[in-house]
Amino acid sequence: MTMSDSSPIVVLVSPQMGENIGACARAMLNFGVTQLRIVNPRDGWPNPKALEMAKGAKHVVENAHIAPTLPEALQDVHYVYGSSARLRDMVKPVLSPEEYVEAAYSHITQGAKVALLFGPEKTGLTNDDMALCDAVVMVPVSPVYPSLNLAQAVAVLSYEWFRRGQDSNSKNIDEPIALPATQAQLHGLFEHLEHELDVVNFWRVEEKRAKMVHNLRNMLVRANLTDQDVRTLRGIIKSLRR
Amino acid sequence: MTMSDSSPIVVLVSPQMGENIGACARAMLNFGVTQLRIVNPRDGWPNPKALEMAKGAKHVVENAHIAPTLPEALQDVHYVYGSSARLRDMVKPVLSPEEYVEAAYSHITQGAKVALLFGPEKTGLTNDDMALCDAVVMVPVSPVYPSLNLAQAVAVLSYEWFRRGQDSNSKNIDEPIALPATQAQLHGLFEHLEHELDVVNFWRVEEKRAKMVHNLRNMLVRANLTDQDVRTLRGIIKSLRR
Repeated sequence: MTMSDSSPIVVLVSPQMGENIGACARAMLNFGVTQLRIVNPRDGWPNPKALEMAKGAKHVVENAHIAPTLPEALQDVHYVYGSSARLRDMVKPVLSPEEYVEAAYSHITQGAKVALLFGPEKTGLTNDDMALCDAVVMVPVSPVYPSLNLAQAVAVLSYEWFRRGQDSNSKNIDEPIALPATQAQLHGLFEHLEHELDVVNFWRVEEKRAKMVHNLRNMLVRANLTDQDVRTLRGIIKSLRR
Repeated sequence: MTMSDSSPIVVLVSPQMGENIGACARAMLNFGVTQLRIVNPRDGWPNPKALEMAKGAKHVVENAHIAPTLPEALQDVHYVYGSSARLRDMVKPVLSPEEYVEAAYSHITQGAKVALLFGPEKTGLTNDDMALCDAVVMVPVSPVYPSLNLAQAVAVLSYEWFRRGQDSNSKNIDEPIALPATQAQLHGLFEHLEHELDVVNFWRVEEKRAKMVHNLRNMLVRANLTDQDVRTLRGIIKSLRR
């Protein structure tokens, strides 16, 4: 396995400016990260400003996968990390850049697909997006001015990834483990469960639905479900509703 | 000592685009680096584009010291590091970002001033600039596309600096040591020596002067001269010429 054909997938969620998309692609390629996916880019696609700012990384932009929603962008992905500038009110592990890289490296070595999400420039990832994440990654920033430019965040986390690959003392992980469920399988479970809960009017108060869905999804993500676990749970739901 | 009042000084040598100067200032402040010096900015000074791109770091741009030449920008500095994307044909230590940060942290803890130089966007630092540096700092980049944007290089090296300050396990270095000569003292020695060598026609062939000056300066920089060493050497030169 070489680093270039199996690096984390960078997913830009609803990015606003084409210039930033291009700058992200350039920073990715500088550090050996080549797979880009973009969810619902504000200014449409293709975007000439993205190509211009990418300089020598134009092919990263040209080969980007575009998806209308985040779940669609993540269908074949096994592990999802969400970059965030602030602590969230969620029961979710918070990793430093090095800790994220160690985890991603280990997953990728086992054959899993890893995605690293970045939210829109102004607002960052929503709680809906975060609910899909196995962990939050926080780049340490100065409290004096914590507002990191999108491409700078991509650069720092890609740099950490590349640096880890350069490290000749890095541990080798060989034992195969059971792969977790893909995001598509997980999402199928979410929708199945939430649909059945709708049918039985589980939420009672409609305003509480969104919050309770977040909590449920977070809980299921934390469980690190395998493919088989997902099938088992869906079987249980079906049985319970029969 | 807090990190903010004694971080390395970022010196942009002949930067071309105001946008890049602003993006550098923003990335610096994100990672607690506040002192900016600019040598001979191509588009003059002040530069409205630099202010605009700096966003919340406008005061870093406004407080930047502007100097016509690199030696003037470095007068009060004790240790100089030059960032470079490529290996140079010079006998000079090459440091990784972490090694640079360890060295800078140790020097600053002792009360010394440290500068980190970045060359113009297209060409990087010249060999003349590099001759003033104690060591070269290389950010590891992918050979596929090694051309790192100026602000991205500043961001990665500022991030490494900030991360080191966050590390609660970091070693404390307490013993005071003799401070090295400042760049002004060192430059006085260079000019004194080179002038005397001009007078005695030491170079013989004029075309060889530049290369020999580089070698001499590199050698003297490597010697880690103290204030007292510089006075001693200048005394020797004076005596020899009498």
